[in-house]
Amino acid sequence: MNAEHRDDLDMTDRPIGVFDSGIGGLTVVAALRRTLPAEKILYLGDTARVPYGGKSPETVTRYSKEISDLLVEEGAKMIVAACNTASALAVPSLALSYPVPFIGVIEPGAAAAVLATRNGKIGVIATRATIASDAYGKAIRSLSANIEVTAIACPLLVPLIEEGLFDDEITRTMLRRYLEPLLRAGIDTLVLGCTHYPLLKGVIGRICGKKISLVDSAENCALAVRALISPSGNIAQDGNARLDVMLTDSSEGFLRIAEKSLNLTIDSLNIRKVGK
Amino acid sequence: MNAEHRDDLDMTDRPIGVFDSGIGGLTVVAALRRTLPAEKILYLGDTARVPYGGKSPETVTRYSKEISDLLVEEGAKMIVAACNTASALAVPSLALSYPVPFIGVIEPGAAAAVLATRNGKIGVIATRATIASDAYGKAIRSLSANIEVTAIACPLLVPLIEEGLFDDEITRTMLRRYLEPLLRAGIDTLVLGCTHYPLLKGVIGRICGKKISLVDSAENCALAVRALISPSGNIAQDGNARLDVMLTDSSEGFLRIAEKSLNLTIDSLNIRKVGK
Repeated sequence: MNAEHRDDLDMTDRPIGVFDSGIGGLTVVAALRRTLPAEKILYLGDTARVPYGGKSPETVTRYSKEISDLLVEEGAKMIVAACNTASALAVPSLALSYPVPFIGVIEPGAAAAVLATRNGKIGVIATRATIASDAYGKAIRSLSANIEVTAIACPLLVPLIEEGLFDDEITRTMLRRYLEPLLRAGIDTLVLGCTHYPLLKGVIGRICGKKISLVDSAENCALAVRALISPSGNIAQDGNARLDVMLTDSSEGFLRIAEKSLNLTIDSLNIRKVGK
Repeated sequence: MNAEHRDDLDMTDRPIGVFDSGIGGLTVVAALRRTLPAEKILYLGDTARVPYGGKSPETVTRYSKEISDLLVEEGAKMIVAACNTASALAVPSLALSYPVPFIGVIEPGAAAAVLATRNGKIGVIATRATIASDAYGKAIRSLSANIEVTAIACPLLVPLIEEGLFDDEITRTMLRRYLEPLLRAGIDTLVLGCTHYPLLKGVIGRICGKKISLVDSAENCALAVRALISPSGNIAQDGNARLDVMLTDSSEGFLRIAEKSLNLTIDSLNIRKVGK
């Protein structure tokens, strides 16, 4: 066995590091599990400081760096920011400073939206911080300059989802209010720009109707990770797949909701302090 | 002028330190301003880690200790935990370890509720963490063993208030749902067990009706602070009153909502990192 071969084996055995402000990023883990069934995944949810969606770029970047440092220390072969707010605010400045590939959810989602639209009108829903950064707008316009992007901050959706109110009158009322300007703008494609939102796909789909394509950034991020891991398209089908979860605070309520809704098996759960 | 007199003057000139997970504690500041118009107030809102209401006792205690250390370093002559979650989870273990008086909002609120009830049935609404701690139940029963306490966690109220949806159909629907078991239990007194909730006093009062007394922990905490500062009841009416605000993240949206609704004047605003 030559050195190169050993390196390959070693890489295969190292986990993909995934992080989020909290539990929502498990939607990306579920997509990775379907797309790359043989991979080990090490997930960190920053539940001691959740949510990120209303915080400043400086604070979100500091938190993302502390977590990425930890994931690299723990042997991650790649870092995935499975949080739209961190992807929008921190990935651009952090991505090049790590010795492993570092990707977020914005570019894959933007690319999928540009492929999906037929009338050139894309809507984006996300947290206040993601919308304020205009990260999706910039990514979409860099791919196709003439697309019209309408973006709406939906700060109450994450709390509603974390309460498990997926198909509740209050959630439907709030969603109709948030989506109204997008429907009025005539969009044919809607980017779900927060990792929590795929849990509301059903309700959002019913409000938007069949003519609007929903772009799930979790799915598209998983496809981008697969392209990085195996440019050839050959994906291992077996292996020592496992999901190890670290949380920065012992907040298990929504973890159990997400585990069940996403049909995930968590092999270990640890509480881990992050930050100096 | 003797040494004792100089000490008194020095004490008068030092600020009352007030902290909260975010901006909600400004309801306590507004009550302090009305009760003690001549005092300087130094407020710290931990907006980089807000909210505390779903976090664990260990994490909330660690955050509260970091902030209290800072307030003492800055010369605070007293520390007020203007956050029900911190008061419930951290004040009992921290209060005795500081060289200055350290009080929370739970005991004053509990005492006022016990005085207010006529039928011995008290309701409490608060964050998930405050309710899980049973801090109000314990404080109320320690004053009067036979009182029946019904406590309901209302995790969505803080996000709704932070969006400024004070008198909105969604807030009313959510409140009717949260309050229904309390009304069914026949309470005649309701403790607003979160510093944000006084901002919903109008709507809550309309749902509860005039027969239920609302106990605002902010008001009662301010009275407890006055009793500590001036056991004699002599309160200075002029002085160098000012309000200096430190936030751990630059999140000004809700600060401006609160400043306006509470009719407060903020003399200085600084961003301050807390924690090692």
